[in-house]
Amino acid sequence: MGLKKGDEYLKSIKSLRLKAHVLGEKPGDLPEHGLVEPSQKAVAFTYDAAQDKETRDLFCVESSLGKYVVNRFTHLHQSADDLVNKVKMQRYCGVQTGCCFQRCVGLDAANSIFSTTYECDQKHGTNYHERFNDYWGWIQQEDLVVDGAMTDPKGDRSKRPVEQPDPDLFLRIKERRSGGIIISGAKLHQTGMLNSHEILVMPTLTMRPGEESWAVCCAVPTNSKGIHYIYGRQASDTRKLETYKLDVGNPVYGGQEVMTVFDDVFVPAERVFLDGEVDFSGLLVERFASYHRQSYGGCKAGVGDVLIGATALIAQMNGVDKASHITDKLVEMIHLNETIYSCGIACSATGEQTAAGNFQVNMLMANVCKLNVTRFPYELARLATDVAGGLLGTMPSAADLEDPLAGKYIRKYLAANPEYATVDRMKVLRLIENLVAGAGAVGYLIESMHGAGPPTAQRIMIRRQAKLGEKIDKVKAFLGIK
Amino acid sequence: MGLKKGDEYLKSIKSLRLKAHVLGEKPGDLPEHGLVEPSQKAVAFTYDAAQDKETRDLFCVESSLGKYVVNRFTHLHQSADDLVNKVKMQRYCGVQTGCCFQRCVGLDAANSIFSTTYECDQKHGTNYHERFNDYWGWIQQEDLVVDGAMTDPKGDRSKRPVEQPDPDLFLRIKERRSGGIIISGAKLHQTGMLNSHEILVMPTLTMRPGEESWAVCCAVPTNSKGIHYIYGRQASDTRKLETYKLDVGNPVYGGQEVMTVFDDVFVPAERVFLDGEVDFSGLLVERFASYHRQSYGGCKAGVGDVLIGATALIAQMNGVDKASHITDKLVEMIHLNETIYSCGIACSATGEQTAAGNFQVNMLMANVCKLNVTRFPYELARLATDVAGGLLGTMPSAADLEDPLAGKYIRKYLAANPEYATVDRMKVLRLIENLVAGAGAVGYLIESMHGAGPPTAQRIMIRRQAKLGEKIDKVKAFLGIK
Amino acid sequence: MGLKKGDEYLKSIKSLRLKAHVLGEKPGDLPEHGLVEPSQKAVAFTYDAAQDKETRDLFCVESSLGKYVVNRFTHLHQSADDLVNKVKMQRYCGVQTGCCFQRCVGLDAANSIFSTTYECDQKHGTNYHERFNDYWGWIQQEDLVVDGAMTDPKGDRSKRPVEQPDPDLFLRIKERRSGGIIISGAKLHQTGMLNSHEILVMPTLTMRPGEESWAVCCAVPTNSKGIHYIYGRQASDTRKLETYKLDVGNPVYGGQEVMTVFDDVFVPAERVFLDGEVDFSGLLVERFASYHRQSYGGCKAGVGDVLIGATALIAQMNGVDKASHITDKLVEMIHLNETIYSCGIACSATGEQTAAGNFQVNMLMANVCKLNVTRFPYELARLATDVAGGLLGTMPSAADLEDPLAGKYIRKYLAANPEYATVDRMKVLRLIENLVAGAGAVGYLIESMHGAGPPTAQRIMIRRQAKLGEKIDKVKAFLGIK
Amino acid sequence: MGLKKGDEYLKSIKSLRLKAHVLGEKPGDLPEHGLVEPSQKAVAFTYDAAQDKETRDLFCVESSLGKYVVNRFTHLHQSADDLVNKVKMQRYCGVQTGCCFQRCVGLDAANSIFSTTYECDQKHGTNYHERFNDYWGWIQQEDLVVDGAMTDPKGDRSKRPVEQPDPDLFLRIKERRSGGIIISGAKLHQTGMLNSHEILVMPTLTMRPGEESWAVCCAVPTNSKGIHYIYGRQASDTRKLETYKLDVGNPVYGGQEVMTVFDDVFVPAERVFLDGEVDFSGLLVERFASYHRQSYGGCKAGVGDVLIGATALIAQMNGVDKASHITDKLVEMIHLNETIYSCGIACSATGEQTAAGNFQVNMLMANVCKLNVTRFPYELARLATDVAGGLLGTMPSAADLEDPLAGKYIRKYLAANPEYATVDRMKVLRLIENLVAGAGAVGYLIESMHGAGPPTAQRIMIRRQAKLGEKIDKVKAFLGIK
Repeated sequence: MGLKKGDEYLKSIKSLRLKAHVLGEKPGDLPEHGLVEPSQKAVAFTYDAAQDKETRDLFCVESSLGKYVVNRFTHLHQSADDLVNKVKMQRYCGVQTGCCFQRCVGLDAANSIFSTTYECDQKHGTNYHERFNDYWGWIQQEDLVVDGAMTDPKGDRSKRPVEQPDPDLFLRIKERRSGGIIISGAKLHQTGMLNSHEILVMPTLTMRPGEESWAVCCAVPTNSKGIHYIYGRQASDTRKLETYKLDVGNPVYGGQEVMTVFDDVFVPAERVFLDGEVDFSGLLVERFASYHRQSYGGCKAGVGDVLIGATALIAQMNGVDKASHITDKLVEMIHLNETIYSCGIACSATGEQTAAGNFQVNMLMANVCKLNVTRFPYELARLATDVAGGLLGTMPSAADLEDPLAGKYIRKYLAANPEYATVDRMKVLRLIENLVAGAGAVGYLIESMHGAGPPTAQRIMIRRQAKLGEKIDKVKAFLGIK
Repeated sequence: MGLKKGDEYLKSIKSLRLKAHVLGEKPGDLPEHGLVEPSQKAVAFTYDAAQDKETRDLFCVESSLGKYVVNRFTHLHQSADDLVNKVKMQRYCGVQTGCCFQRCVGLDAANSIFSTTYECDQKHGTNYHERFNDYWGWIQQEDLVVDGAMTDPKGDRSKRPVEQPDPDLFLRIKERRSGGIIISGAKLHQTGMLNSHEILVMPTLTMRPGEESWAVCCAVPTNSKGIHYIYGRQASDTRKLETYKLDVGNPVYGGQEVMTVFDDVFVPAERVFLDGEVDFSGLLVERFASYHRQSYGGCKAGVGDVLIGATALIAQMNGVDKASHITDKLVEMIHLNETIYSCGIACSATGEQTAAGNFQVNMLMANVCKLNVTRFPYELARLATDVAGGLLGTMPSAADLEDPLAGKYIRKYLAANPEYATVDRMKVLRLIENLVAGAGAVGYLIESMHGAGPPTAQRIMIRRQAKLGEKIDKVKAFLGIK
Repeated sequence: MGLKKGDEYLKSIKSLRLKAHVLGEKPGDLPEHGLVEPSQKAVAFTYDAAQDKETRDLFCVESSLGKYVVNRFTHLHQSADDLVNKVKMQRYCGVQTGCCFQRCVGLDAANSIFSTTYECDQKHGTNYHERFNDYWGWIQQEDLVVDGAMTDPKGDRSKRPVEQPDPDLFLRIKERRSGGIIISGAKLHQTGMLNSHEILVMPTLTMRPGEESWAVCCAVPTNSKGIHYIYGRQASDTRKLETYKLDVGNPVYGGQEVMTVFDDVFVPAERVFLDGEVDFSGLLVERFASYHRQSYGGCKAGVGDVLIGATALIAQMNGVDKASHITDKLVEMIHLNETIYSCGIACSATGEQTAAGNFQVNMLMANVCKLNVTRFPYELARLATDVAGGLLGTMPSAADLEDPLAGKYIRKYLAANPEYATVDRMKVLRLIENLVAGAGAVGYLIESMHGAGPPTAQRIMIRRQAKLGEKIDKVKAFLGIK
Repeated sequence: MGLKKGDEYLKSIKSLRLKAHVLGEKPGDLPEHGLVEPSQKAVAFTYDAAQDKETRDLFCVESSLGKYVVNRFTHLHQSADDLVNKVKMQRYCGVQTGCCFQRCVGLDAANSIFSTTYECDQKHGTNYHERFNDYWGWIQQEDLVVDGAMTDPKGDRSKRPVEQPDPDLFLRIKERRSGGIIISGAKLHQTGMLNSHEILVMPTLTMRPGEESWAVCCAVPTNSKGIHYIYGRQASDTRKLETYKLDVGNPVYGGQEVMTVFDDVFVPAERVFLDGEVDFSGLLVERFASYHRQSYGGCKAGVGDVLIGATALIAQMNGVDKASHITDKLVEMIHLNETIYSCGIACSATGEQTAAGNFQVNMLMANVCKLNVTRFPYELARLATDVAGGLLGTMPSAADLEDPLAGKYIRKYLAANPEYATVDRMKVLRLIENLVAGAGAVGYLIESMHGAGPPTAQRIMIRRQAKLGEKIDKVKAFLGIK
């Protein structure tokens, strides 16, 4: 049994018969829904790339759990080179899809759970690590998509989980039964959930003694009884449902988000990887977050490449590509984008082996990477808006382009550099609009801010990892201060 | 005859029976179209505010053209105080509507044409100034909305008007006839056009000898024969057409943009204010641009106030308003917003009288003002996104909130600070989404970049106005260098 | 008796026979000391400018305390125009001296004390306002320089004045005697003290009940018994003492700082303007700080002009002034500098009358102004460094230029644009060095950060002045939230 | 023969009996001159660290030219790991010395010349590579310091070398003689020259056909006949010559710069590595520049660590280290510093083997690294200034601290957190002053801007390396545009 092809993946997801609340409806055939399809195709791309002979060396790697080849999106990193290759693969996927391809979160969850369960078992005598290895070996061999689910609703942010009026505002173990547990709560901002076979549930923050019910890590299938999905709205989302696709911007791929409710979902014991060990909840969160902050150094640089390419192209189409201020803005965009990527590479190349044997990114640098991601894409978007021109906010619709009279006027008056057709200019403008003020901006801007944690979370980690005390001591020694 | 009320204004616009191509259709009753209505209400606000006893002192002012009171939106500025009051009025409209209220462009056009025609007449012996005064007196007394139309399509940006393959890519005088002229071309990015009674057409750049056909300034009614409108698409625009309005974000007001085609439109001689005098085209453009760059120091600061208020409110609703990093971000937003406003005030307070007698803003500072507007709203939006949280990109729809099951889950899991209802939290999030990644972002971000000209245009003006030579001479004298 | 001329001022200061500890010595004739002289000349400039027929309209103004003309540097502002003219005067002095001219601090102190004593008297029945008017009338008529002394050493910043181990770490009333008080403590960062006739002592922060001894405002002559001065070191200060002056950078003017110790100094009752009224200490601090934050919108913009001029000139001398990236950097410098100035103008033009009758700046905008001053001069310096080139850090000394062999090589190898002499190029580079990394940088950078309070102080005031609650209420009303 | 110890190095330099023009004098014993000594000690540190058992694994590496161990500062990189270790070593030296340790430039020159001569020989049949290997093997075994000399005076920047009125403004081959060449010209901004045994002369830019005389690369001893040195002035340099050292800031180490004149210096043929092959001049410059831009990702991060440590320490000493705004500024400093370092690591980890066998950094990323170095240290310095307080510009001298009266007052009034002695607080403030506005700022700020080329040079390289055409093609394919 080998790695799945893209269409095999699509078929396998369809067979799960997932349902979701979508803009007031509950469509029967989710995978073919116009809103969902672009997002599923982005995941399918990660399968096809592992088949493509141009890229399969990057995407295929031998498993550490057995003698078989896996898609790198399910791989447990065995070296710093593996970490670097992960980032390269992510940038590649980003530039090919121009959006979030969703499969990193499961990869990042798996690597964190792998090392954390090992250390938990060492201390507490649990057997989570073996359970997890069994589970993950199955995932690898079936070549499945796993969604890592971390973010709880959190209710009133000024209160701990135990203090919330509604205990479900942080997902928790509601009941322990023979053979398993019942979990209750919700996970927000789940990008890839509806395109996944499995879910890895993780706690959202460091739990403290007394909060054992909330210290839970486990796996369940996405089509488990008791799970409910409510689709998130995004800027310009319904353009995907319109007749003329030009206005969507990204012609094939796209993102989505879903709120996932766990209404008393049963999890069998062999799928439970943390159950009340509060002292390992924080480590799991930190590791996952660090891996995922590394990820953004790849994928967002890839989407940045699309935006840079589109911006350079529209400059040509407008006839201004030789202007020094245009070149300067493009260089600035490249500079910022490569700085993000450099941080992704650096935290990978300096990664270190965990006790369990897989490789963890350098946590300080991974957080630095993500903190840059909360800033630079915004400046890239601003510069792209500057270069592209005001049509980003005023261009007529694809539907009007079809009208005999309006279409004639649009073609006449939006013509620019004669080497390019007007409609192609419109395509490029819609792609840029998608990324700076449309559906794509949710992934490229809002997710760059909040995905893998908001900037404040990175700042806290940077502070904690920075060994400021050592720096102070060095200065004291330098100056002869006791 | 006094100033119109908001509903009188709406009735008067309806009576024009304007038509536009809108997303592939050609609606018969434009003013009541779901896309157009919010934008018209924003203009109507400028009428109601002149009636409101809280604000009428700011909005009403005695005309310089006769013994009657006018809405300040049609006033010819008679002092630096008038300029300052204009900016104050704009900030007020911005904070009340949360969007573009469109009426500034006609005001800025009128003041520029007033002074430029005077100087043109002095040099060329034309009688444009008198013509314009007649026209504008009528506008003031009828209390009409006038759209200033400047931006030509421009085609290939590396070519001059005369070099374009299609001469219409810059609007031009196609024919001179007894009694008037025929104009042909288009004006892009027309925000207030469909809500206006009249259009003031202006050239888009400094014309050179040989480009006399493109050096034209004139006025025509919006419902003139030969004018065609094609509606612009904006992020999330069709949410305005949906059943549940919560997802729109801005509950009452909104923006729009339209492409305006002039297909052989006749303009009678008494409405022509520049006809081939290329040596005054640049002055007109610079003055209009400077007034309009001043305007942004008011209106965008007002919209910024809405965004700041919404961000502060969502912080309370999330229960994080006491966190020092939240306070810090709010202070930064205020600081940037007040910097914009300060620049708007400064270029007004230092304004000077023209030969024609009205007041012109300080051109250097007005350009500095606008250049800050091309930057700071982006940072405000980034900070608002940071504070608001990831729900900006993932929150379920208003339609799902109506569903019994989904609605229950949404209410349960999006609850935060118990002092606020979940639905109110959703309203605030949608308002922020509107401004940072939705329909409002077109006005608050894209228009902040390109409205009144892109940043490069401001940089060129700053360079030209900065008297760098004087600074160099001062340093030479200081250092004793000859 | 009229306004003093610069040399009369210099003579009057000399007659005070001030002494200071200067780099380990205690020079007998301070005003002619090589370190002090440039700084005194900068103050003298403010006298000469009031005589100069080009500028005297700006510098001379009729007193509000009597029928005589005063230097605007001692004027109590009678209108918003007065506030605007203050900023214009400051920019002018900045561009003429390229450094701090020191006289603003007394002006800002006087205006704050004038209005605060009035309100204190209203509440407490004291007669400070009359005392102050008597005092200030004398200052105006004698045309004296007054140093406002606010900043206490503050000791351990985590402790209040009462909690400090040494009560003198905040200047205090040590003893109340018939006829006056004895004060003890120190004031740091006193820029103009050694060039002043008088000192206006003010509290450094809002005092609380129990801290009455520290709530003191009073005036003493600079040559009072018990006052000790200790000179501050600055980057590159001793170049002023070298034989060849080229290396100093600023050929005439310069700054200095002095620590002032009050070792049991007696103050007669008629010179005491606050004595324990803790409820007015904060108001006095806030008003002074706001005036002084306005001041920076003028003076630092003036010094910025010198830096911009020097940068544009060195670009010419290097032969790169036509390069687009150079122009772009100059435009950016101008933009930032004019933004600072705009904020200075805006907080002045929107100033309002106090109960006492003089005019107070808009406090929100004045703080916004200063917060920009803590940022933009740094970017101006960075850009100047970029344009000027590496010679800023590597250029040979003026002394080597005098050496026959070394001088020949320097002239040969530092030649650039042949229109300029090498030595002139060196002068410009030294001027830029002075402002970005030398003695001038203390005034242009460090003082821009900390003078009139560090950025955090401005942020606190911005938060306090911003009426955030009103903005929230407006958004609630907008969205129909109760 | 093994690696030299620090004092052996110092002795060897002394034996060269170098002379320089220093502030108008020509001291007989340069190495012991107060200005020179701190800079030489910084180089000596690179020797001692190779002996230190804590660090010798990082500093010592087996040569690729023979079976012996070399100091990594003379190593030809054999792997990406070698490149990474170079950056780690540089950061370590930076944090230990707080200044430039000068030895990187020779290392970067050697690696560039090694690979470029190989490729030149392949094309032109020259034997430069063998010559260079002979030379460099000697350098490695003698463990010498080599200065790479690239920057020509360049005269009028708008002119090519051939167009300059004085042909020496770019260093050139003045005469070709049997057995060698005579070179004439100068190299500016030579940081380590006076502490070096040898000089590697390189061209400063890509030479074109007709400019063969300027396409020269060669090696000469620093004490060659015809070489003249003129010492550069730096901010606060003469404090190093004062009695009390506290005011210097950096207690042991320091920087310097020297202008080096080559007045007809003979170079024997075996030390000539490029002689007129204009087609390899640009490659050599680009490679050297890229290596050196990588270097800054290490050393400046190290100096950044000192500044961060000092800033954190002064916050403790002031008693404000718990304030959230202080923590936030420290985190920001760390973030920016680690971003620089990440870029240094990334361009190393992705380095690739040259045809000659050594490893070259990733040129795109190395330029991105340096471009960040032209920005972030400025922001670090600004933030350090903010946290440290105004005393940076006003603190009394060390000499006054020795005065009985002044010293008493200084101790009394500069006391803060009682856990620290006042004099220690002064030391930390002087260290920060050194780096933000003193002698250290020349290395940390001005050199960060201009060393290894100014930002515009990096921008040009980024543009050239970024494969923008490929990005455009990808977007065209993505959108179906031909």
